Amino acid sequence: MPARVSDQINGDRLWQSLMDLAKFGATAKGGVCRLALSKEEIEARAALAAWAKRFGLKPSVDPAANLFLTLEGREPRLPPLLIGSHIDSQPTGGKFDGAYGVLAALEAVHAISEHAEPPRRSIEVVAWMNEEGSRFAPGLMGSAAFTGRRSLADILPVKDRAGCTVESALAAVLDAEQDLTRRPLGFPVAGFLEAHIEQGVRLQEAGCTVGVVTGIQGKRTFRVDIVGEESHAGATPRRGRRDALTSAVAVVDALQRAMWDDADTVRFTIGLFEVTPNAPSVVPGKVHFSIDLRHDSGDVIEQLGNMIPSICEAAQGRCTAVVRELLYDAPLQFPENMRSRITGAAERLGMSQMRLQSPAGHDARYLHYVCPTAMIFIPCKDGISHNEAESITPVDATAGARILAETAFELASE
Amino acid sequence: MPARVSDQINGDRLWQSLMDLAKFGATAKGGVCRLALSKEEIEARAALAAWAKRFGLKPSVDPAANLFLTLEGREPRLPPLLIGSHIDSQPTGGKFDGAYGVLAALEAVHAISEHAEPPRRSIEVVAWMNEEGSRFAPGLMGSAAFTGRRSLADILPVKDRAGCTVESALAAVLDAEQDLTRRPLGFPVAGFLEAHIEQGVRLQEAGCTVGVVTGIQGKRTFRVDIVGEESHAGATPRRGRRDALTSAVAVVDALQRAMWDDADTVRFTIGLFEVTPNAPSVVPGKVHFSIDLRHDSGDVIEQLGNMIPSICEAAQGRCTAVVRELLYDAPLQFPENMRSRITGAAERLGMSQMRLQSPAGHDARYLHYVCPTAMIFIPCKDGISHNEAESITPVDATAGARILAETAFELASE
Repeated sequence: MPARVSDQINGDRLWQSLMDLAKFGATAKGGVCRLALSKEEIEARAALAAWAKRFGLKPSVDPAANLFLTLEGREPRLPPLLIGSHIDSQPTGGKFDGAYGVLAALEAVHAISEHAEPPRRSIEVVAWMNEEGSRFAPGLMGSAAFTGRRSLADILPVKDRAGCTVESALAAVLDAEQDLTRRPLGFPVAGFLEAHIEQGVRLQEAGCTVGVVTGIQGKRTFRVDIVGEESHAGATPRRGRRDALTSAVAVVDALQRAMWDDADTVRFTIGLFEVTPNAPSVVPGKVHFSIDLRHDSGDVIEQLGNMIPSICEAAQGRCTAVVRELLYDAPLQFPENMRSRITGAAERLGMSQMRLQSPAGHDARYLHYVCPTAMIFIPCKDGISHNEAESITPVDATAGARILAETAFELASE
Repeated sequence: MPARVSDQINGDRLWQSLMDLAKFGATAKGGVCRLALSKEEIEARAALAAWAKRFGLKPSVDPAANLFLTLEGREPRLPPLLIGSHIDSQPTGGKFDGAYGVLAALEAVHAISEHAEPPRRSIEVVAWMNEEGSRFAPGLMGSAAFTGRRSLADILPVKDRAGCTVESALAAVLDAEQDLTRRPLGFPVAGFLEAHIEQGVRLQEAGCTVGVVTGIQGKRTFRVDIVGEESHAGATPRRGRRDALTSAVAVVDALQRAMWDDADTVRFTIGLFEVTPNAPSVVPGKVHFSIDLRHDSGDVIEQLGNMIPSICEAAQGRCTAVVRELLYDAPLQFPENMRSRITGAAERLGMSQMRLQSPAGHDARYLHYVCPTAMIFIPCKDGISHNEAESITPVDATAGARILAETAFELASE
């Protein structure tokens, strides 16, 4: 019996690559601030491409700055299998969210490249552009553009808080990567596999090594603007005020009460909240805040999300609340014939596994619309993510890469 | 009978100077953004000094960047009378808050300089440094340093949001004003008069031209830090969250309920509110906000302010609220023998007047501790202030300058 491709996985090499990538945008507290299309990400992408070239992968980039590292198959004209995730992070993010999926894919392809027989199809490691959406909102931008869910023209004018557009930030990345082959946006693909840290505690609590992801929660996002009137903190009586902060607090309180469920299945978050003019002795004239609403059930997310405008209006007090919906992604289920590949590989390798839903959005969401897609989760300590304290073990990292290598090799060999 | 000094007041010249000064930091909506010690303020100060020199005033500056424009009296060695206010503004401020007091003083001194007989004491127009406190908190910084209420050493390390210290911003101002005479900090003064827009509606409602200010509200300011834990918006169930925004909203709501009074005499404002990391898909780990509490009664402000830490603690939920008091200024009354000068001048000029308390803090607060001090209010449209729509009439502006000239001339001639 020939050696398994997963036997070629080098756990030390994978762990070292995770630590090396984490240096780009490293924070004092051991986390990473590597915002999409930032200088730090440009440097990290260059390092990735250099590592990949060392074992014969060909780096290329598309107009949305999605980065591909290609291991050529025996029939390179066939649509390739993509495996990967993203390397941008939250402003105070961890070392593993996204980065693990890209580096596990790189290690898997490295292992496959050292295996006796090359796969039939090419396998491409991919790092999707701006998954996090914290610099340019909303996220999943590169995978949305690649799959045609959003046009590039729609994305280019989006600005970060400093007023920089995606267009100019993209130009800086592509300018730095002039030596890479340029790919068209949205070429045909045979499938997509994404490995990722769980960002929850179910694997840890069950003592499982591998999570076979059944699907992704539905997600709706909104922007709420509360418009009042600035006035003097010392001179304006309460009855003369149109205090945007007072109204915003009432609106947030009303929303939180409406979204409260006994079973604690609704994920409702106000993560961004900004006050204008934001000065201690001025009654605020404006507030705007974000709403992030997620649920496994399409019916629940439809019903709760639709309530938001009327809740805001009812609680707006003397100010005016304006609600805009930014994103509506229904819940989705990955195809069973993809999930069963991962289950089969875990069984062959004797790894403990469980099936679980992804609470977080991933690039796999959009790839699911254009090709057979699946996701593999590995445990992350105490479920802590989007946080500098994010942590995984080398043993789990290696196990995930082995499953990924097995599954990718099988899919690309058919 | 000799002509009155107030007959020399030129209302057109005063109005033109108000419009000219408003060009420094002018905003698109007709307001002013001229933050303390900013480039815009440096340019405005240079213009003020140039205008003053044209009719023989001598500009000088002290180590806290308080700017003085001196009309020499017959006995220049006597402590001078100071008249003025400030020219820094809120980020979205109006043309008149502070600027009116400085330019009415400049016009008053101009009128006095054209009068037959010079006063006994010198009269100095003053523009105090950083009254507003919105770039460097808290405000009244220049008058606090001049009167010894705060040491310069205490003020210099204060930073703005970009990390710039008062020390470096002051150095830039003093560097630009090397040609001005350097004064010591806190020289002896004979008295202080400050004219200001009312920032309330009492004069407008009563149809009065002149407000004789009886005193200033007490003011306490606090900074509240709410510390929770960052986590993933999609993956973290409500029971696993320590959401700093949720706790902050509960704390703000509890504070507003506790400060609510039927009579609407308590001024309670949360003007600054900042979230970390402030990203749509991250449960906030930290919030900090400002509290501005004012009242006419020393007992009320003592009692309400002292309740704040326990209210925050009771409402903090799963996060930790830390309260720091930044400022405690008790209510004050100006001396009757100063108020009566303004009353007398208004009677002589046949102007309608009323006595009223100042709800807002002013540099006069600190001058009151070191010399006989009084304030004159003029009406401001609908009480709107700390707002780009701030508005006064040329007739009221002229009337205020006439009262100021009469009172200053009388005080400086004794």
